[in-house]
Amino acid sequence: MNKIDEICTSYYRVPLEEVLVDAMHGDHTHFELVVVDIICSDGLSGCGYTYTGGYGGKAIVQVIEHDLKPFLLQKDPDCIEYLWNKMNWRIHYVGRGGIAGFAISAIDIGLWDIRGKKAGLPLWKMAGGRGRTVRAYAGGIDLHYPIERLLSNTRNYLQHGFHGIKIKVGQNRLAEDVERAAAVRELIGSEKKLMIDANMRWSAAEAVRAARAMKDLDIFWLEEPTIPEDFSAYNLIRKEGGIPVAMGENLHTIYEFKDAFSIGRIDFPQPDASNIGGITGWLKIACLAEASNLPVCSHGMQELHVSLLAGTVNGGYMEVHSFPIDKYTTCPVELNENGEAVAPDVPGTGVDFNREILNAYKDPQ
Amino acid sequence: MNKIDEICTSYYRVPLEEVLVDAMHGDHTHFELVVVDIICSDGLSGCGYTYTGGYGGKAIVQVIEHDLKPFLLQKDPDCIEYLWNKMNWRIHYVGRGGIAGFAISAIDIGLWDIRGKKAGLPLWKMAGGRGRTVRAYAGGIDLHYPIERLLSNTRNYLQHGFHGIKIKVGQNRLAEDVERAAAVRELIGSEKKLMIDANMRWSAAEAVRAARAMKDLDIFWLEEPTIPEDFSAYNLIRKEGGIPVAMGENLHTIYEFKDAFSIGRIDFPQPDASNIGGITGWLKIACLAEASNLPVCSHGMQELHVSLLAGTVNGGYMEVHSFPIDKYTTCPVELNENGEAVAPDVPGTGVDFNREILNAYKDPQ
Ligand SMILES: [Mg+2]
Ligand SMILES: [Mg+2]
Repeated sequence: MNKIDEICTSYYRVPLEEVLVDAMHGDHTHFELVVVDIICSDGLSGCGYTYTGGYGGKAIVQVIEHDLKPFLLQKDPDCIEYLWNKMNWRIHYVGRGGIAGFAISAIDIGLWDIRGKKAGLPLWKMAGGRGRTVRAYAGGIDLHYPIERLLSNTRNYLQHGFHGIKIKVGQNRLAEDVERAAAVRELIGSEKKLMIDANMRWSAAEAVRAARAMKDLDIFWLEEPTIPEDFSAYNLIRKEGGIPVAMGENLHTIYEFKDAFSIGRIDFPQPDASNIGGITGWLKIACLAEASNLPVCSHGMQELHVSLLAGTVNGGYMEVHSFPIDKYTTCPVELNENGEAVAPDVPGTGVDFNREILNAYKDPQ
Repeated sequence: MNKIDEICTSYYRVPLEEVLVDAMHGDHTHFELVVVDIICSDGLSGCGYTYTGGYGGKAIVQVIEHDLKPFLLQKDPDCIEYLWNKMNWRIHYVGRGGIAGFAISAIDIGLWDIRGKKAGLPLWKMAGGRGRTVRAYAGGIDLHYPIERLLSNTRNYLQHGFHGIKIKVGQNRLAEDVERAAAVRELIGSEKKLMIDANMRWSAAEAVRAARAMKDLDIFWLEEPTIPEDFSAYNLIRKEGGIPVAMGENLHTIYEFKDAFSIGRIDFPQPDASNIGGITGWLKIACLAEASNLPVCSHGMQELHVSLLAGTVNGGYMEVHSFPIDKYTTCPVELNENGEAVAPDVPGTGVDFNREILNAYKDPQ
């Protein structure tokens, strides 16, 4: 039997080119990247990873090294869904999302890389095989940009051919949010999609007020208007605000997503494979979305999500996030002439890192 | 202004005297203890801590050291609820319970220790001042005990004068659970309370079947019959099973408890200060319980919960957990002649550790 022989975990703290700001996370100066190499007795190896907005990365390394690795070594790497279930129960008391969920995600992605390499299958086929392309939109982290910078940034996105553009909202004055969104809408014209993201800043009443104030701007979705736990508020906001709602980057279990669908009635679920339990977790959410008659979207990690969204039958829109993880991979995301991202067609996930470049950001453990 | 000058974190892996087994966590051989000493510029210091069932402890240390400490140093230790809120938002993306919640809990308990020492107030008074005693029951982790051992263990609890006794259920055969519960009921007589704890093993239907099978045994509560996310199932189980339900050790946010009250209609909420966000988090849950007209109970950590339960106006029943954390403190829990635990009457939480004994279990970082 093939067995997991070794698991090597690396931590990187990667600086952003400039400080990025949203409504509730404050200043982003770095992202943390945790890379896991899983080596099997048959000689195959897989690359898994997760990332954070700057906190929790070292704890994720400890969960992998101390809590998961002793269980995983000598196990059969082919039985991924079973191992996923066992990992979740092993650390259940300190788990059910959060840091434990990020750690399981990294391992799971590495196991899927092995599965694909062994079968000779690219991830877009393992995820369903619908196709190799998905509509991509640019996710700006731009709450702090003066309006001129917001517009020049948008022009840059337009040149890349994105299908849509998302800007941050949640300024101290609602009028300023409206003004900025109106300026971007005017610049991009009526064809391109425009999304707004409040990063949980508002109460339900504030969100409804904001949505109504932007009703003439043809907003494609309003993302995370309020805290992720308040599903009843999501339902109310979409009904009374009149704009479809999106969420998911802060939902880290299948149970949270189930409630987001049934109670929140959200329109655009956005699971992130780096925190929902890897590819196994992401595909479970895609299935829940399908059962709710919804397209599944994504948050962050575009170099991996491109294959998941392209392959799954109900793949919707892919965020190209402002954390440029894919810049450090051997195969950065590329857009075709239709504003679609194209999935890699190599066995496995198609994601590995340029270790030499990353080495500069490695933290001595 | 008084400031937080230093935070020192220690990790201990403490062996249990024997292997303990429940329905879903498997074998317990150790518990992990993370102790945080917070030293202030005015010379006062506070002792905070958290514990786990064996996994996640090293990650908790990393969250405290790398993600929380840089924020806390030089802050005013008196503004506890504000710091609690800020800590939660700082690590929100990897937080909302789980390992991050355990880390915040440890810090928060240390800050309350400082608050009490500074004010010259014991925790039972800071928690409300209702009194110094609370009814205590013994929480056995005894699923693997042959029935003779289960009964001799129960006899031992009776000699200590506990107000009630809780046994584990969730054997492969329901008939065996019924037989064991019946034998314990017969031994303890009709006056003592008998609780059962399934540690999430059952489906809703299995739980209802089990509750009905034990309807003649006067079970005081059925604890964690199913997974903590399925609040609708809790509601169904209590209604159709005919036994009050308890839960809380696996709920780590105020939002989860809100749903447990409003959707789950649980009867006995059991927050644990070591994972619900410390004393600040625990008191918020006590308040939610009060608003739902319910007594608040506890899980684990009896040396601290004794003061919270004794002091708060709606304090219910205190579990004396089988992880003997209090054995390593300078003031282990004692029962009076009425089966009540007695809260310490010294300024602060009244919990500090015997570091010399603990040193044997310290892990070289
Ligand atoms: Mg977002
Ligand atoms: Mg329990």
